[in-house]
Parts: sequence; structure tokens; C-alpha cells
Amino acid sequence: MRHLLDTQSLGRSDALRILDVAEDMADTQRREVKKLPTLRGKTVVNLFFEDSTRTRISFEAAAKRLSADVINFSAKGSSVSKGESLQDTAQTLQAMGADAVVIRHGASGAPRTLATSGWITAGVVNAGDGTHEHPTQALLDAFTIRKRRYGGESRGRDLAGVKVTIVGDVLHSRVARSNVWLLHTLGAEVTLVAPPTLVPQDVSRWPARILYDLDEAIADGPDALMMLRIQLERMNAAYFPTEREYSRRWGLDARRLNALGADSIVMHPGPMNRGLEISAEAADSARSTVLEQVANGVSVRMAALYLLLAGAEGDADTTDATRKVTPR
Amino acid sequence: MRHLLDTQSLGRSDALRILDVAEDMADTQRREVKKLPTLRGKTVVNLFFEDSTRTRISFEAAAKRLSADVINFSAKGSSVSKGESLQDTAQTLQAMGADAVVIRHGASGAPRTLATSGWITAGVVNAGDGTHEHPTQALLDAFTIRKRRYGGESRGRDLAGVKVTIVGDVLHSRVARSNVWLLHTLGAEVTLVAPPTLVPQDVSRWPARILYDLDEAIADGPDALMMLRIQLERMNAAYFPTEREYSRRWGLDARRLNALGADSIVMHPGPMNRGLEISAEAADSARSTVLEQVANGVSVRMAALYLLLAGAEGDADTTDATRKVTPR
Amino acid sequence: MRHLLDTQSLGRSDALRILDVAEDMADTQRREVKKLPTLRGKTVVNLFFEDSTRTRISFEAAAKRLSADVINFSAKGSSVSKGESLQDTAQTLQAMGADAVVIRHGASGAPRTLATSGWITAGVVNAGDGTHEHPTQALLDAFTIRKRRYGGESRGRDLAGVKVTIVGDVLHSRVARSNVWLLHTLGAEVTLVAPPTLVPQDVSRWPARILYDLDEAIADGPDALMMLRIQLERMNAAYFPTEREYSRRWGLDARRLNALGADSIVMHPGPMNRGLEISAEAADSARSTVLEQVANGVSVRMAALYLLLAGAEGDADTTDATRKVTPR
Repeated sequence: MRHLLDTQSLGRSDALRILDVAEDMADTQRREVKKLPTLRGKTVVNLFFEDSTRTRISFEAAAKRLSADVINFSAKGSSVSKGESLQDTAQTLQAMGADAVVIRHGASGAPRTLATSGWITAGVVNAGDGTHEHPTQALLDAFTIRKRRYGGESRGRDLAGVKVTIVGDVLHSRVARSNVWLLHTLGAEVTLVAPPTLVPQDVSRWPARILYDLDEAIADGPDALMMLRIQLERMNAAYFPTEREYSRRWGLDARRLNALGADSIVMHPGPMNRGLEISAEAADSARSTVLEQVANGVSVRMAALYLLLAGAEGDADTTDATRKVTPR
Repeated sequence: MRHLLDTQSLGRSDALRILDVAEDMADTQRREVKKLPTLRGKTVVNLFFEDSTRTRISFEAAAKRLSADVINFSAKGSSVSKGESLQDTAQTLQAMGADAVVIRHGASGAPRTLATSGWITAGVVNAGDGTHEHPTQALLDAFTIRKRRYGGESRGRDLAGVKVTIVGDVLHSRVARSNVWLLHTLGAEVTLVAPPTLVPQDVSRWPARILYDLDEAIADGPDALMMLRIQLERMNAAYFPTEREYSRRWGLDARRLNALGADSIVMHPGPMNRGLEISAEAADSARSTVLEQVANGVSVRMAALYLLLAGAEGDADTTDATRKVTPR
Repeated sequence: MRHLLDTQSLGRSDALRILDVAEDMADTQRREVKKLPTLRGKTVVNLFFEDSTRTRISFEAAAKRLSADVINFSAKGSSVSKGESLQDTAQTLQAMGADAVVIRHGASGAPRTLATSGWITAGVVNAGDGTHEHPTQALLDAFTIRKRRYGGESRGRDLAGVKVTIVGDVLHSRVARSNVWLLHTLGAEVTLVAPPTLVPQDVSRWPARILYDLDEAIADGPDALMMLRIQLERMNAAYFPTEREYSRRWGLDARRLNALGADSIVMHPGPMNRGLEISAEAADSARSTVLEQVANGVSVRMAALYLLLAGAEGDADTTDATRKVTPR
């Protein structure tokens, strides 16, 4: 793998390879071998044009556990805000020794431009671009679903036959987009539930069915119910219902929680608006995978950085990767 | 030790243990063995809801010298400011692998809530909460007093018979509170000197006597005179005298400096307002321990992180701790 | 070397020594030995009173590759902004264990004050002070010119006979000042080209000739043409021409690029204003050394930190330094 830009173009075997290496990473963390020497001498730059402490810290923790040096570059107050181009910023970072650039950008497509323009040779990881994609979020979600379902028998498995329902502001959500593509690639059946004003115009071309009624979707017995975060700062816009109305119709309250099947899980990418899209009961219930998602996020990001930076020499299969990753 | 939340509930033996381990840490620093492998693979998160570059850097230096990975989380501009709860923030940080959370918070009691709510299992260190406590500041102050008094013979000793006078805005000072409790526990006699409008209402229940006249307090022959920082931003409030008046009545000028006993020391938690609560002569005199306090702060924070993160396996006594800390 | 404060007082042998050690550093980087243990246990503080992500990151990368611990101290929002003096800030950082302080400050002369006041014993590196100097920028520029000219035969050589032309806002440029002194010390012939309103009053005492016409300067056949960055935020001031006028008269466009001699190089300290002082053709041409300058900046800063922190024990010559730097 050279880059990780989206899940729409990510093939099944690459996706499974990331998930399987992430299993190895999670194993080493569990065995209290927290620091791996794998990326010693490599430099990872977090190039964030939008604030996202949570995602930045997750990548930072992942890189540091692989012994990489991490440099945080917040584009605010930097030469970028003085009008420097993305090209010059990226080439400068690479000239300083960046081996990988983790980029979050407000413009959809910026990571792909960076990776395919020929400006730099460093690996590029999309950490969220506009309303386009957030591939590591989808990978950690898929990892979490697989892990809850298959436990220690997860390696090599896809999500065939798993029913995943994604609920909320699908229109603006890069998390939803990345999940739809990846889950479909892995064989899951995806259902979207959204207020009619928050459905993308081109949704008919997505490999997912669309519903407007959350209760109907729950009655269908999803294995995983993924509640999207409502961006409160957008709630004034015309196409949003009131908070109260949103919560009543598309929020996961105690009644809906109890209507879920016995093995169904509840997911949320965080940070949660408790009481809005998700109730405290749902957030803190045994079904909730919210904190597993966070922990798995570090493992998945370790895997992505590993495959970009250490797995470059040929198409080593997963078993080889494991051997390299795991210290004796 | 599981957490370090305050000095009011810190027992004498735990307090002495921190001070004695800090002696070991200071010794290794002096011998130019600056990097200890003790906390390799551990992650310390600085979770700061209030700016404090000075305290944050001190903890960061302490953690890095013990080879821990450090992640700085400034709550400004983060999901916290988007309404995420302290519970969700803390659980997220732990899920990402935080072994210890160093928290500064504007609300008194926030660190205790974090430590005792059952939300997380990571160790919690209070780096200042509201007007409540700042325990590592008091520990470094006690360490400094002991070191000046007993030098290389400090280990195992308390502060019995030592007279400490704390001067300034006691009402708002978490430094004063933490010092009063710790110094009392260690056997020192504490005197508070404050303008009448800056004395806490419940001061009669504190293990300290209160005076209003600095000259009277100095005539009493304190071993250590601790000048609190005046928060200039509060000087407009009704209960503050003017700067000039404050400086004249409660500032440490050259005359008062000379009135101190031969072995008395002058302390200040920094940053100093030279010319307000402390004159340049006092700040730069041989009596001043201001920079020793800063240096000792790193040693004390190394000790606290060590005891929380590496000393967890049983109640190893100080000698054992030393053996583990000191490289051959 | 104790400090690196300016190039005006930097002697020829010290300058060459830094450039030669930087060659060693660049060699280790090229051989993919990115992490040297040289400064393990040392702490480098980046004390930045002005924002400069680019310079800060370059020093951070340099220090980390030498295995130093790096602490970033942005003076904004810190106790400095609460009125703490430079003396107290610096002494505090040293008390916390800073072995070197890399300082950027808005006031010309602040780094020298810090180094010569007796406040601290830590090494001081000037990372840009007011309109005074930016010595590591000049060193990386000299390194780049030498490398392009002599390649693998660079070690030990100066710049005798090399013609360097510096173009732009000389009046406000610390980059220009540092380059004039250093290039002169190394034997180069320096020409300055500037709008008449942007020439320093005391330029007659500088070891450089001054021209006002860029075409005339290019006709003279410079070996290196260094375009200064125009600070757009100053373009409103009376002494600046319009952007369009500036670009037409002092910008490096395609026509002027083609008028340069076959081996001439085009330099820029970055970040570039493409289309203003430099055209895209010039910035991206094979003559352009912009990215080499960035890469060389890390090597030069590694060399400076090495010589300040590890080279202190006696005047080890360059060969010795190399031996210490290069791992077997």
C-alpha cells in the first residue's frame, strides 16, 4: 500500500489486510508490549487544516507506539494561513524528512490531490476531507463489528451477512460515506436512516438502501446500529429539525435500545451528544462499542502506518507482516 | 498510590515516600543520567482545561525523562469545547491507551470526580483544580524546604519544627491550600498573612494561624517565607487593594528581606510579578529558592508519575523504589 | 561553540565547521540512518515568541533525529503574556532541564541578551530576532550553494569567487542581513537588489554592493539569485510599490529566469508567494534549490545543536565530530 485515501477504491484484500494487521497490533497492546521498534527513524507529520484533537491524538499515539517521531502541524497560524499552497507545504514537510503525511482538510479530495499530483513521494493518509471520506474511521468500525462477532477467530473474515444500519445526518457525513463503501466491499448489508432533508441527492447510486423511519429500521433487526454525531453548529440551517424533534424521531432512546436484538451492538464515532442522537442508557449499555471503537482506532491506525511505511518492500502477505510487527 | 488528588487526604508516609523518591530522581538528574527507562511504553496525557504552559512543561519533562510517551491535550478547540462531557473525554483518552491523566481544570473537585467515578482506571494527577488544590506544587515546596534545611541528609525526614509563612491572596490560592495541609501533615507550623478581604471564611478550621501584618509575621522569624502570586487580572475586584497599596503592605521589599533571619528562605511558585508581591532584590537574592523550586518540581513530578505507574505492584517501600529507579 | 547568535560575529573556521558537520549529518540521513543517539538525554526547548511553524518544525525534526527530547513553548497564552520577564522565563526553562534554548523573538537582540546576561548557562540558538538576524537560514543557504557547486567535494571549502545576488525587501529582512555577513566571511561577492524605499540606511557599511535594477544584476551573471519573501501584510505601507509593480520590477519571471547563466541557481527561504516575488516556472525549475534548502536546513540545525550540546568538550576538530556523530 502506498496511500490510504478512501474506502471507495479500497479493494477487499487490502481492507482485510489492514484489519488483520490491526489484530496483530491489538494483540501486542494487550500483551503490554506497548512500544514496537517497527517505525524507528520514520517521521509522521500530522497536517491538520481543521481542528480535531481526538483524531490527531489517535494517530499520534499510533505512530509513537511504533517508535516513529511525530510532528504536529496545525495549519492555523502557519505559513499556510499566509497563503502558502498545499503543494509547497507538503513538499516542505517532505524535504524536512516526513515519511508519511496524515492530512485532515476541509476540502473534499485534498488528500488524493496530495497523493497523486507527483508533488511528494511520502505516504498519505486521509484523516477526514470535507464531506468526502474518513477511511480509518470506517476501518475501525469494521474492525469493531468483526471483533464483536468473531472474537479471536476474526482474522481473514469479512462481514458477509452482517446487517449494519447507519442513522443521522448522512448528507454531511464523511463517516457514513466511508462506512457505506467499506462495509459493502466486506459483504455487509447497509441501511441508511436519515431525515429526508439530510439524504444525499446521489444516494440511489450508493450500495445501500435508504429508510426514513428509525423504528422500521430497528424492527428489521440490524446487527449493528451506528448513530452519527449531529453537528450542533449546523442545527440552525433550514434542513434540520429542532433538537427535540430530531431526538424524538432519529435518536436512540431507551425504548429503541430495548427493541434491538439480543446480539445487536450500538456504535458511535464520538464525540457523543448525549441526549440528542444517543441517550445515556444507550451510550453506557453493554451493547455500546463506543470505547472499543476508540481503542481499535489506535490499532487500525498503527496498521495503516505500518503498511504504508514498513510494508512497502513488496507485497508481503499478512503473515509476514505479523512476523515483522511482533517482537520475540 | 493510585492517584494524587490533593494533600488534605495525603498521609504522612505517602508524602514522605514521594519526597524520598523525588530525592532519588534528583540524584539521577544530577549525575547526568537524564533519561530513565522506567516508564517506557507508558502513555501520560496532559489534559489541560486551563492554559498553564509552565506546569504542563514540567510534567512533560518529567514524563519524558522516564521515557513515557506524552500526549498534550488542550481542551480549547477540542470536542470538549463542543460539549463533550468530562466522562467521555477521559474514557476516550484511556481507550487510546492513557496510563495516567494529568488534569488541570477550572472546577474544584474535577480530578477527584475523574478518579473516583469509576469511569477510568488510569492514574489521575491533579495539576491544579479551581481554588481547591495543586498538590505537586506543595510537594515541591516541601521538598525544597527540606533540601535547604537537611541537604544530603533529607531522606526520611519531615518538617517538624519548621516555621513557614505564606503571604498573599490566600482566598483564591490553591497553592496556599495544598501547602497548608501538606506542611501541617509534615509537622511544620504554618502562618498565613493576607489582606483581610482575601482570607477564606473557613480559615479557622485550617491548621494554621492567620495574621494581617507582614512585618509582625517576619518579626516572628519564619524559616521559609512563601510569597503567593498576585493574579493581576483580579486586581480590579472590590476586595483587592491597589497594586501600590498591596506592594507596600504585603510585598517583600528590600527592608523586609533584610529583616529575615540568617537562614530564612524566600519562596515563590512563579511566575513572579517583580515589583508587586516580590522585589527584584528578593527574587534574585541567595535566599530565594525560586529556581530550585522549578527544578525540584520536575523531580517531584517524576516521583509522582513513577509511584502511580511503576510502583503499582504492591506497596514497595522507598528503598525498593530506589533500586528500580536507579540504573546501574 | 557555546551559542549561535548571529553570523556577523561568526568566524570563518566556526562557519566552515558547522557546514562540514552538517555534511556529516546529511550523509547519515541519506544512508537512512535517521536516528542518531548523540543527544539522548538532552532537552531542547523551542521558545517561540512569534509564530513560525516552519522554522519550529525544522528545529524539532533536527533535535529528534539526534534523540533529544523537544519541548515546544509558544509564548502566546503563557505566563510570558501575563508579564513574566524574558529572564524569568529562560531561567525557569533551564531549571526544568533545558540544555539548549532555540529562541525566536520579535525584538532584535533578544537572543544575545539571553546568552550574555549570565541568566542561564544553556546554549542559545537564534531562530530569528526582529529585523536583525536568522543565522541558521544563512548557514543553510551557504550549505546549499556550496553543495550545488562542489557536490561530494564540498568539505572544507569556502565560497571564494561565488557571486550571490539577494533581491527584495532588504530593509526588513533578517535573512538578508545574516546572508550578507556569512557570505562575505566565506569569500563570496554579494550584491543586493531592492526598491529604493526598502534599502537600509546604513547599507554603505555592509560588505555588499547595492543595485536597484534586477535586470542589470542578472546581466552581471550571478551564481546564485536569492529571492526574498515579500511580507504581504506590509504591502500597504507607504514605502511599498503595488504588488503588480513589485512583481514587474523585482519579481523573478520566466524571461529573467532564462537570462540567468547555465549553472546559476535560484534560491528562496520560503514560504513563497508564487506569482509575486517568484513565478511558478522559477520555483519549480531545475535551477530552484527551494526544497534542497529546506532539507539542508534540518542538517544545518542538527550540526548547530550537535556542536552546542555534544561538541562542548574541547575544540574537537571536524573529523572527531564526524566520528562521534556517525554510528558504526
